[in-house]
Amino acid sequence: MSKKILILPGDHIGPEIMAEAVRVLEHVNARFDLDLELEHALVGGAALDAVGTPLPDDTLAKARASDAILLGAVGGPEWDNVERHLRPERGLLGLRSELELFGNLRPALLYPQLAAASSLKPELVAGLDILIVRELTGGIYFGEPRGIRTLENGERQGFNTYVYSESEIRRIGHLAFGLARARGKRVCSVDKANVLDVTVLWREVMTEVAKDYPDVELSHMYVDNAAMQLVRAPKQFDVLVTGNMFGDILSDAAAMLTGSIGMLPSASLDSSGRGMYEPCHGSAPDIAGQGVANPLATILSVAMMLRYTLDKPEAAAAIEAAVSAVLDRGLRTADIRAEAETPVSTSQMGEAVLQAL
Amino acid sequence: MSKKILILPGDHIGPEIMAEAVRVLEHVNARFDLDLELEHALVGGAALDAVGTPLPDDTLAKARASDAILLGAVGGPEWDNVERHLRPERGLLGLRSELELFGNLRPALLYPQLAAASSLKPELVAGLDILIVRELTGGIYFGEPRGIRTLENGERQGFNTYVYSESEIRRIGHLAFGLARARGKRVCSVDKANVLDVTVLWREVMTEVAKDYPDVELSHMYVDNAAMQLVRAPKQFDVLVTGNMFGDILSDAAAMLTGSIGMLPSASLDSSGRGMYEPCHGSAPDIAGQGVANPLATILSVAMMLRYTLDKPEAAAAIEAAVSAVLDRGLRTADIRAEAETPVSTSQMGEAVLQAL
Ligand SMILES: CC(C)[C@H](C(=O)O)[C@@H](O)C(=O)O
Ligand SMILES: CC(C)[C@H](C(=O)O)[C@@H](O)C(=O)O
Repeated sequence: MSKKILILPGDHIGPEIMAEAVRVLEHVNARFDLDLELEHALVGGAALDAVGTPLPDDTLAKARASDAILLGAVGGPEWDNVERHLRPERGLLGLRSELELFGNLRPALLYPQLAAASSLKPELVAGLDILIVRELTGGIYFGEPRGIRTLENGERQGFNTYVYSESEIRRIGHLAFGLARARGKRVCSVDKANVLDVTVLWREVMTEVAKDYPDVELSHMYVDNAAMQLVRAPKQFDVLVTGNMFGDILSDAAAMLTGSIGMLPSASLDSSGRGMYEPCHGSAPDIAGQGVANPLATILSVAMMLRYTLDKPEAAAAIEAAVSAVLDRGLRTADIRAEAETPVSTSQMGEAVLQAL
Repeated sequence: MSKKILILPGDHIGPEIMAEAVRVLEHVNARFDLDLELEHALVGGAALDAVGTPLPDDTLAKARASDAILLGAVGGPEWDNVERHLRPERGLLGLRSELELFGNLRPALLYPQLAAASSLKPELVAGLDILIVRELTGGIYFGEPRGIRTLENGERQGFNTYVYSESEIRRIGHLAFGLARARGKRVCSVDKANVLDVTVLWREVMTEVAKDYPDVELSHMYVDNAAMQLVRAPKQFDVLVTGNMFGDILSDAAAMLTGSIGMLPSASLDSSGRGMYEPCHGSAPDIAGQGVANPLATILSVAMMLRYTLDKPEAAAAIEAAVSAVLDRGLRTADIRAEAETPVSTSQMGEAVLQAL
């Protein structure tokens, strides 16, 4: 039976990197007989400009009907002043929430060919391979009540609610422990249980979930310490599991440790394994339209999709090997090149991956 | 007129590092004729064990009657399972809140003598000098409602409230801009205005406050990007201003960039300049009782106190110069030494600073 893949290029460099990822996806589709059907739709600022909303009904309907979604990136300064519910980011947040994509996997992996790009000393990051598992449909991102109100004394007050229920914590816990079992067998749960009540519950539930995984070791760490430890000695971690807001911050810090955020894919999964796949980097308005963006994170997001949703590990491995081969050949887009090297363009990079395949 | 200084050693290494800081404080008190009166009190786990609460009334009364407070560090694993309102951290949070110490100054400064200790490449941190200004008495740390409740379906739910009013944002804004004016003249305000309503208000008010400081440049950055930029290129920052929770995370990451968190002091100020001074590091239960903790962050906290609350810049400068001289002599506690060096003890380090004075 054919599987449906929805392509959401998004804004700025989104369409540029997506074009290359789609070429790669179409190649493996043919070569591995995957029977994938590709559809396209608008999201983010592009959708807002075209039809007045960052998540059009048509896009959401197509997303619901798909087995997997490949997203480029959304956002840009030209939409900084639109109302909050119309911002490009609402398209992304709406998809996560409507499709219940609660499990966000953000690997921070150092490519040996790019070791020099890290801002950390080489010995601290050589072989780095962390997986951040971030809860993506709850916490303070979606908690109610929220808003800006006027107090009796006339001044305004902004407020948001950080909230998690046991079942929300439990399901992200099981995801993290299951993933840890298949790799380093260690989970570090990050909270702020010395201050925040909601993370007291988080810590309790994680400790309960751990009982189902006697072969996996659980530790707990406060978020401030986790931010420090990522800078000090990142290789101490295997899987990190945390809530939406802390995960946003820590996964970006962890990604940056590798020095090549333009290389890092991500997955956002629901409870049945359907998912949205996207690069960790953003829409990079500053370099859009120049054909210089790095398409590898999006291409590697295709590989993650093949692995986690479509269950085609050989096709995924083929893409990952092709990316590695291209790096071995010394090809670099501007974001990952050393001073001396001549960068290749977005499409040259995509072409090189296709050839390596 | 004499000034009152309250000494709160706290837990674990707290009393060890405090002993050295007090020797230094007594020395400058005599030498610069400061007319300081020192008092001692209990806080944190030590207070809980002695009198059943982490912030005894007597301690709070003495704190209110003081011009400045010098605190060691609180907390430890032996109190992990006490009720939340009795935890050692509540002593610290209670002092901050009761005394309205809303302005937390956390410098991240690289000592040239210790450049090698950073996990970042030397060229990225050489000369690093960032000041993080963290709001300390509001935000999600103190927001109500908070707690853990049982839902109708029987499952528990934890919740906290992230809340800021205009006036709270305005006063921390003015503090940050005033400080920036006296140094690099750049303020970067960190928020998550693309997702959190409360930080939409934060951004608006910071933009308003900036109008009073035409000579200071304001920029805005999302917290996830700020965490990345601190790892990628920390020297781009001068003053960072942010809320309580983001400030907790970012200041620890920034401190760790220097590689020597055992060197970094902090100040927590109220609107009249009274303040609490403490090292950025914690109570380090793992090395407590061995006489090996680094007292320099606490000694440098004395210098900050002399500068910000007591208005004795010469005395502050004398302490800072003495610390620098001791580092020049190659003296290092275990936390900041290179592999080959023999570490000095806590009291040897304190003694060396006294001699240099
Ligand atoms: C664009 C933004 C809403 C989003 C988030 O904060 O989740 C992004 O930073 C991410 O991490 O995917
Ligand atoms: C001990 C803890 C409550 C405290 C905080 O989170 O504020 C500490 O991490 C700090 O940064 O001073």
